[in-house]
Amino acid sequence: MKQGHGRSMNRVRVRRFESADWTGREDLLAVEEPLEIRVDVPAGDGRTEIPVSVTMRTPGNDFQLAAGFLLGEGIVASREAVQDIRYCHKVTPQEFNVVTVSLRDSVDPSLLTRNFYTTSSCGVCGKASIEAVEAQVAGCAPLPGGDLMLTAEEILSLPERLRASQAVFERTGGLHAAGLFDRHGATVDVQEDVGRHNAVDKVAGAAMLDGRLPLHDHVLVVSGRLSFDIVQKAVAAGISALVAVGAPSSLAVDLARRFGLTVIGFARGGAFNVYAGAERVGG
Amino acid sequence: MKQGHGRSMNRVRVRRFESADWTGREDLLAVEEPLEIRVDVPAGDGRTEIPVSVTMRTPGNDFQLAAGFLLGEGIVASREAVQDIRYCHKVTPQEFNVVTVSLRDSVDPSLLTRNFYTTSSCGVCGKASIEAVEAQVAGCAPLPGGDLMLTAEEILSLPERLRASQAVFERTGGLHAAGLFDRHGATVDVQEDVGRHNAVDKVAGAAMLDGRLPLHDHVLVVSGRLSFDIVQKAVAAGISALVAVGAPSSLAVDLARRFGLTVIGFARGGAFNVYAGAERVGG
Repeated sequence: MKQGHGRSMNRVRVRRFESADWTGREDLLAVEEPLEIRVDVPAGDGRTEIPVSVTMRTPGNDFQLAAGFLLGEGIVASREAVQDIRYCHKVTPQEFNVVTVSLRDSVDPSLLTRNFYTTSSCGVCGKASIEAVEAQVAGCAPLPGGDLMLTAEEILSLPERLRASQAVFERTGGLHAAGLFDRHGATVDVQEDVGRHNAVDKVAGAAMLDGRLPLHDHVLVVSGRLSFDIVQKAVAAGISALVAVGAPSSLAVDLARRFGLTVIGFARGGAFNVYAGAERVGG
Repeated sequence: MKQGHGRSMNRVRVRRFESADWTGREDLLAVEEPLEIRVDVPAGDGRTEIPVSVTMRTPGNDFQLAAGFLLGEGIVASREAVQDIRYCHKVTPQEFNVVTVSLRDSVDPSLLTRNFYTTSSCGVCGKASIEAVEAQVAGCAPLPGGDLMLTAEEILSLPERLRASQAVFERTGGLHAAGLFDRHGATVDVQEDVGRHNAVDKVAGAAMLDGRLPLHDHVLVVSGRLSFDIVQKAVAAGISALVAVGAPSSLAVDLARRFGLTVIGFARGGAFNVYAGAERVGG
């Protein structure tokens, strides 16, 4: 599955004010471009292509992003469901901004409709949206309780190691990061994107395409805040613990408690808070 | 237009690790809940209600959020287009999570379709999405060139003043902020939300409902990074200058240059970069 050479940085000319002085200089910007995700499914005697979503993302690892998005939405659950992933060559010059995922089997149309309407239907409201997530992850094994254990020292080291792996952030200051670490604290994958949900999709999608799901034995670390959708994506990938440098939202904590995820926030400056799943944290 | 009493903070019990010690304590979380936005338009002899979008937001100023969202999407352009805004009382217990905006006139169905499919159609890709934005803001007056002028000193003071107005962030660390300032640097409005696009919609919607559009003479300041959608919303509200504490994305700068907006990023620590519209920055 060969991917396009997406640029993650753009060079622009800026005027800089610093120490009461003006200078002209070059600056690097994180690239933001739309990616349309389509699925291609069996229909009657042939196949049909259905647009599922458009996300504003930083080019790079687009196939992993598309796979991770479909995983988070409950449209696929394993790499066996995916036949092929490709760019659409019919839409030049946007060919590297449209990705089609060919699925072996047809998809429950309500799942695709829900994607269209995730941002437009009443079914997403409040309790109903949590029920929709539960339906999506019904096929996942329940999260194991005390299998993964994290010490305070390990937790404190993770954000620092995530930051050390952020190649593009260092140069643009403009990217969110998501990093996957195993139970021994070894770095498995780090992805960067202008959208934090995309960075998580890239990590989860790569794991799915490599046949590494579920990620029960792993910790996902995010550079910013923790919102509802990040927890939803972690649940779908079977991740047991989430560590955020920033604050979690109320709904992120509610959902994590319901699914037995460990949630740690404000992991910085030698301190952190445990919001859910404290049984996995020791030391 | 009476609004529901949305809670912006939730109290939770956490375990805190700090200075090599564990304690139990209460922590405040920024509330994240879904808001469904509907429009109600004339249809035949009666009226019809159409769901437009669902956004995950922090409750509070929901009517301004709904109005600002419709402004940013090009569905309304002034308060005259809005007849009434109300919560949906048919969907208890979610009644304060569904807002219906009654419009005086019917709406071009392609605008509503575009909202449904903003995250799902090919029409959003690359250049096409910028064209869609241009179509949305075609009714706006062109941005005046050198009318608004900002000094370096004024620019440096704005993020500090935004932060000083962030009541909920101080207590939760979990909210983005958007602040509107006039040409003399006076604070017009500051809004907070778990989603930065929602904070901008609340500011723009409040201005529209008060009949204060277009905001040519104003600066919008955002607490984080600057992405494509924030510039799109600023263009729709006629805002001339954007100041961000964080980094802009490539597409944010492209769009601003196309529409003649001033974009300033990394405004912190006594320094900033001007990415677009430098003619409005002096001193």
